[in-house]
Amino acid sequence: MKKLILDLDTGVDDALAISYALGSPEVELIGITGTYGNVLLDQGVRNALAITDLLGHPEVKVYKGLPHSSTTDSFEVLDISAFIHGENGIGDVDIPDSPRQPEIESAVDFIIDAVKTYGKDLIYVPTGPMTNIAAALKKAPEIKDEIGNIVLMGGALTVPGNCNACMEANISQDPEAANELFHSGAPVTMVGLDVTLRTLLTYKETQQWRDLGTKAGEFLADMTDFYIKAYETTSPHLGGCGLHDPLAVAVAIDPSLVTLLPLNMKVDLEGPTRGRTIGDETRLSEPADTTKAAVQVDVPRFLNEFMTRITNLAKAAE
Amino acid sequence: MKKLILDLDTGVDDALAISYALGSPEVELIGITGTYGNVLLDQGVRNALAITDLLGHPEVKVYKGLPHSSTTDSFEVLDISAFIHGENGIGDVDIPDSPRQPEIESAVDFIIDAVKTYGKDLIYVPTGPMTNIAAALKKAPEIKDEIGNIVLMGGALTVPGNCNACMEANISQDPEAANELFHSGAPVTMVGLDVTLRTLLTYKETQQWRDLGTKAGEFLADMTDFYIKAYETTSPHLGGCGLHDPLAVAVAIDPSLVTLLPLNMKVDLEGPTRGRTIGDETRLSEPADTTKAAVQVDVPRFLNEFMTRITNLAKAAE
Repeated sequence: MKKLILDLDTGVDDALAISYALGSPEVELIGITGTYGNVLLDQGVRNALAITDLLGHPEVKVYKGLPHSSTTDSFEVLDISAFIHGENGIGDVDIPDSPRQPEIESAVDFIIDAVKTYGKDLIYVPTGPMTNIAAALKKAPEIKDEIGNIVLMGGALTVPGNCNACMEANISQDPEAANELFHSGAPVTMVGLDVTLRTLLTYKETQQWRDLGTKAGEFLADMTDFYIKAYETTSPHLGGCGLHDPLAVAVAIDPSLVTLLPLNMKVDLEGPTRGRTIGDETRLSEPADTTKAAVQVDVPRFLNEFMTRITNLAKAAE
Repeated sequence: MKKLILDLDTGVDDALAISYALGSPEVELIGITGTYGNVLLDQGVRNALAITDLLGHPEVKVYKGLPHSSTTDSFEVLDISAFIHGENGIGDVDIPDSPRQPEIESAVDFIIDAVKTYGKDLIYVPTGPMTNIAAALKKAPEIKDEIGNIVLMGGALTVPGNCNACMEANISQDPEAANELFHSGAPVTMVGLDVTLRTLLTYKETQQWRDLGTKAGEFLADMTDFYIKAYETTSPHLGGCGLHDPLAVAVAIDPSLVTLLPLNMKVDLEGPTRGRTIGDETRLSEPADTTKAAVQVDVPRFLNEFMTRITNLAKAAE
């Protein structure tokens, strides 16, 4: 069975990503590594522990990652992140703290150990900045050849960014780390705004979770409604909220949900396009054997999988 | 038989595009419409007349298009264009003026008339700015539904631009016109730097033309060697010159040479990304029925077609 690590800055769609993973019988979620972005590292770790408990999976271990980017000394949550995800990251919905603590082992060491243990069976899914995986690749470069796949949510290749015309939010937190990942030789599948802004959820779907009458269903509905409401302000043209992080999990489990373009990519680090994910013009004629970008998505099939898996989980979790 | 109109700012790769079209038995080149860009309008028209004569096809009529963009009053050739294409646009190689003159009918009226006459059998291939086709669509909007296809060389979707990080040269000349084309509803296939910077020609291939011992072969070799030499300065990482314009003609004749991504596109008109061709985030969930971008290319097959067609033409032209 494939093993999954989710690397999360547990906000709203990260919580949906956890739900998708736990609702997928094809994979085992062996751990969550915490990062910063939608929330501070500690808040995200707290949320991941609380959510796995609420969803009936207290066996999922949570590891603390790095608290800020490789090029900065600290991190503060942007106002826009708090507006979209709530002050607590999960739509300002109150759920109980977990009695558990995060593991002692660091996220970076856990990632390296997991690669050594599971090799090609391991899929690592970062849905925040690429800080932890870049640090793991720096500490143990050989894992690039040993890991099964890295399926990241982030970037924008064929559409504009969501921070500015060029920059997507996850990449914006640590462009250098993402650029190192793209040049590392590790297998990378980029699930960016190209596809995640086409997979939209509305109040109609969240009502199905509310109708389950379970705590998990109510939590998922309340949290996601907050997120949909924020999207009405930030992206009124969409008519719903983007399912960014859960789509990355879905692609990790079943790549046939998207059309993948093989491309040697880079992240622009200088000038007005800083943070842009784009083909590397100096490597256009080299085979793109390890990096791919999702450019199309089977929307109805993904939405069906998304609702089926998460609804079943939320029903069973009581 | 398919009918082809080439809309050219006849520089070096435009001359190769003419050669590819004339060397293709599947299509009839019914006319060349002149535009500005690599050279001034009049120089490009002069070159198109002289080249069709030299290649043994004086029956190809040449029409004068608009001399500058829809948002400017005049046009001057950039130093970099003269460096790449030569002062005369064709690698500073001397070839005789044609005894012919351009037609009296304007390029815009010729395009409209050709659509009325040939309808879905007509493919229009602009390899300079989109000024003429935007003007034709403004004068006769109904042609958007009547024309077979518009296969443009220009833009950069998955790679950086060649004017700056965002802007490709043809789009840069008239971003507004290109944006109007993308929003017109006309069928558009964008053949951009994504693919044209992967299809490279070297001195080895031009030597085959020189070895033919014909005037046409010598002209093509001398002209293209000038262009390859310029690329050694402007793009030393490539190891050859990009076959921009002939690839657009090749795709017009055989779309299976490239992988096409259906995408509703726009051109950024404001700010630091002005001139960028990118997916329109407000139309991501609308079906992309009319616009497509080439994102991969069968390089060996194209190069083989390119050399076979042009070499046969240059041999026959004496």
